[in-house]
Amino acid sequence: MILLVTVPDGSSLNLEPEDGPLCRVWSFFRSKVSGFAKKIWKLGADDPRKFIHSIKVGLALALVSVFYYMRPLYDGVGGTAMWAIMTVVVIFEFTVGGSLYKGLNRATATLSAAFLAWSIHWLASKFGEPTEHIILGASVFILSSAATFSRFILTVKTKFDYGVTIFILTFNFIAVSGYRVDDLLALAQRRLFTIMIGVSICIIVSIVVFPVWAGEDLHLLIIRNMEKLANSLEYSATEYFKEGENADAHKSFYQKSQGYKCVLNSKASEDSLANLAIWEPSHGPFRIGHPWKQYLKVGSAMRSCSYSIEALNSFINSEVQVPRSLKNHLSDVCTKLSLEYHKVLKEAAKFLRTMRKSSTIELMMAEMNEAVEDVHSVLRSLKPAAEEEQKQHMLATESVNMMKVLPLISVVSLLIEISVKIEGIVDAVQDLADLAGFAADDNEKQEEIKPANSEETQRNETMKVIQQV
Amino acid sequence: MILLVTVPDGSSLNLEPEDGPLCRVWSFFRSKVSGFAKKIWKLGADDPRKFIHSIKVGLALALVSVFYYMRPLYDGVGGTAMWAIMTVVVIFEFTVGGSLYKGLNRATATLSAAFLAWSIHWLASKFGEPTEHIILGASVFILSSAATFSRFILTVKTKFDYGVTIFILTFNFIAVSGYRVDDLLALAQRRLFTIMIGVSICIIVSIVVFPVWAGEDLHLLIIRNMEKLANSLEYSATEYFKEGENADAHKSFYQKSQGYKCVLNSKASEDSLANLAIWEPSHGPFRIGHPWKQYLKVGSAMRSCSYSIEALNSFINSEVQVPRSLKNHLSDVCTKLSLEYHKVLKEAAKFLRTMRKSSTIELMMAEMNEAVEDVHSVLRSLKPAAEEEQKQHMLATESVNMMKVLPLISVVSLLIEISVKIEGIVDAVQDLADLAGFAADDNEKQEEIKPANSEETQRNETMKVIQQV
Repeated sequence: MILLVTVPDGSSLNLEPEDGPLCRVWSFFRSKVSGFAKKIWKLGADDPRKFIHSIKVGLALALVSVFYYMRPLYDGVGGTAMWAIMTVVVIFEFTVGGSLYKGLNRATATLSAAFLAWSIHWLASKFGEPTEHIILGASVFILSSAATFSRFILTVKTKFDYGVTIFILTFNFIAVSGYRVDDLLALAQRRLFTIMIGVSICIIVSIVVFPVWAGEDLHLLIIRNMEKLANSLEYSATEYFKEGENADAHKSFYQKSQGYKCVLNSKASEDSLANLAIWEPSHGPFRIGHPWKQYLKVGSAMRSCSYSIEALNSFINSEVQVPRSLKNHLSDVCTKLSLEYHKVLKEAAKFLRTMRKSSTIELMMAEMNEAVEDVHSVLRSLKPAAEEEQKQHMLATESVNMMKVLPLISVVSLLIEISVKIEGIVDAVQDLADLAGFAADDNEKQEEIKPANSEETQRNETMKVIQQV
Repeated sequence: MILLVTVPDGSSLNLEPEDGPLCRVWSFFRSKVSGFAKKIWKLGADDPRKFIHSIKVGLALALVSVFYYMRPLYDGVGGTAMWAIMTVVVIFEFTVGGSLYKGLNRATATLSAAFLAWSIHWLASKFGEPTEHIILGASVFILSSAATFSRFILTVKTKFDYGVTIFILTFNFIAVSGYRVDDLLALAQRRLFTIMIGVSICIIVSIVVFPVWAGEDLHLLIIRNMEKLANSLEYSATEYFKEGENADAHKSFYQKSQGYKCVLNSKASEDSLANLAIWEPSHGPFRIGHPWKQYLKVGSAMRSCSYSIEALNSFINSEVQVPRSLKNHLSDVCTKLSLEYHKVLKEAAKFLRTMRKSSTIELMMAEMNEAVEDVHSVLRSLKPAAEEEQKQHMLATESVNMMKVLPLISVVSLLIEISVKIEGIVDAVQDLADLAGFAADDNEKQEEIKPANSEETQRNETMKVIQQV
């Protein structure tokens, strides 16, 4: 294997032919560095926004530095410039929502804590030396404890956690400081001004230079997950029911069928994005007050569906050999059903992506329910068929026992059950559309023709693949 | 409803008989406050460690203040004392692991950033005025960007995220400050000393006063979740298969059967506890290097099981009326199977709780597999029985169709499938026991008699309840 590393020191290359201990150390080091560099490169290439974010942080810090280089405010590390730098470093987050959350929390907390601390200082100063210290000490203890406890309250935890930290910090600084009450006001004014500069630079860089919106991210995450669910459902079922066995096709089908696993563990990301999205101003098609919480309901409905797919997968991979004839009986209706699921979920995803109400989705749901009914009616007719078959094959009654058909029946039954979950997802999406006031799809016929066709084509192609394989 | 509020201002009570607008405002306010107070009280009463934590933070801050009151170090808010306060406020976390993680990260990052910044300062100072500023500016931009990017690397994110923030902060302070190189060393020394005091006070208070160990918390969380799974499995199945219908018993059974839902969403807490636990010193039975990562595997095996229980529950609550006779056929073996699951999981939980290897668990697993076999054999014999029954009842073949037995078959089949998940959990627990070097259970016979008996009694009692209901 040829390692493509930019060698910083050309002379080291001369060591290679000798193959001495130094050379081995060097090549070990080189392979480590190249592995690490590749890892880093992949990390950035997968999501270039990570590279951009890093450069944005550097830029914001450079801006703050320039701001203070240009003013004669050099009173050292302990001085005011420090607070602007600290604000930038601590506040700058990956998403605009994150930076706004921290920035607004920091500003509000500093302001309120400064005001409270100053009031207590002023009150305490009326009592003279010993009492003053007791009042200040007690207030530090009580307010710090109370504020810390408030962080366990859910609303505070999700919306104001950072603000509470800054509140405790600022309050303690001022309460413990030896300043006189009159000096405090001037100090607070200067401090606030500096923090405002830091916050402003952060937020401006965050919004102006390639902004990453938490809200948009959440929106896209939900859509992506919905498409993954759609593919998982289709590929899991067609893979199980299809006739032959082709290793390559099997592998590609299997990979596509595993997308639902992303949905299983996406709760934490969804929650954090929704918490940050509420801080963001209008951006793109999203207005202030966009129902971000409803996305969590869509996410939760999708997760519920993914649990069923997980259970489905454990039966699909079951080692019990199901009688081929019985499987064939159910193959067509079940494959059709999974394709209907795929269609409905894809339509729901498109619905979200275009942010226009879809009237075809009702129709698709009806078709889906028809497909469920088809599976039902095949199941109803199943018993006599199986018996006939037994007579034909002259088998003893016991040999076609429940045990052998169990995985198949479970797959079918879970597949039917999934229709309820899909309905849940569509309901949640429709609630979202109502809450967010999606526009009605007026020229739906015109617009719908092409996607519907391509959907149809895709479906037919999948059917072909299944029949070929 | 009588509101039990401590009224801070007695005179306000006089307003009540008048029922004027002020009174209504007051009673609205009072009910709000009392509701809030009750919420707070419940939060603390559910987990008194939250109260204690708040007091510990207050205590640590009071200690820092006393430390600096006693020394003539009053150089104002910009001075050294501030750094100790900031360290305490920012570092003090709920768990010992959290405080250690942040404390060690802060100390190391400050040290390394200070060293690096000083080196660059020293180097730059050799070049004279204009070049010096360019070198410093470029180093701020490049190092800040690189450090920010490193936070996207998973290992850095989970172990050194806070350290990187502090690194950027410290580096920027020193690089941007107008200090001369010689002054810097003295400053860095003082700063480090102050931060060390803050970190020490935090860690000492954190460990000495009612410590909350992340490792112990993770250990207990896994055990609690395992017991919840055990109950869910038992109650879900017995609830489904039991004869009559008693509203009260139903409700209590239902509540007990919902415990698995905690397991569905516990991934985030498990991950964060495991990440903090690695920073903790030996505590209780846990040594340094305890295999905390293995707990995540146990958690993941349990989650996989809870997905199946979720699917099971969707069939249990199905509205299709399953033929009673068929249900009765399967009732005994399935209830027995669910009790075996309960037994195995409870034993695995006990195994973890006592941290002693259990030899009975192998026996229980064998019994569990036997119970699975029993279900299998009933299923094998099912077809003829159903046919006999049909003859007896003189029903047409079609009437006992697949559709009606579908939910039942699915429940049974998921119940069988769960045995694989339980094996996964037990395997993960046994790996944990090997990795952590649990002691072998020497006097197992003596010790086991009682629990085995009580388990048996409990099981019989449950059986009684089922038969009574």
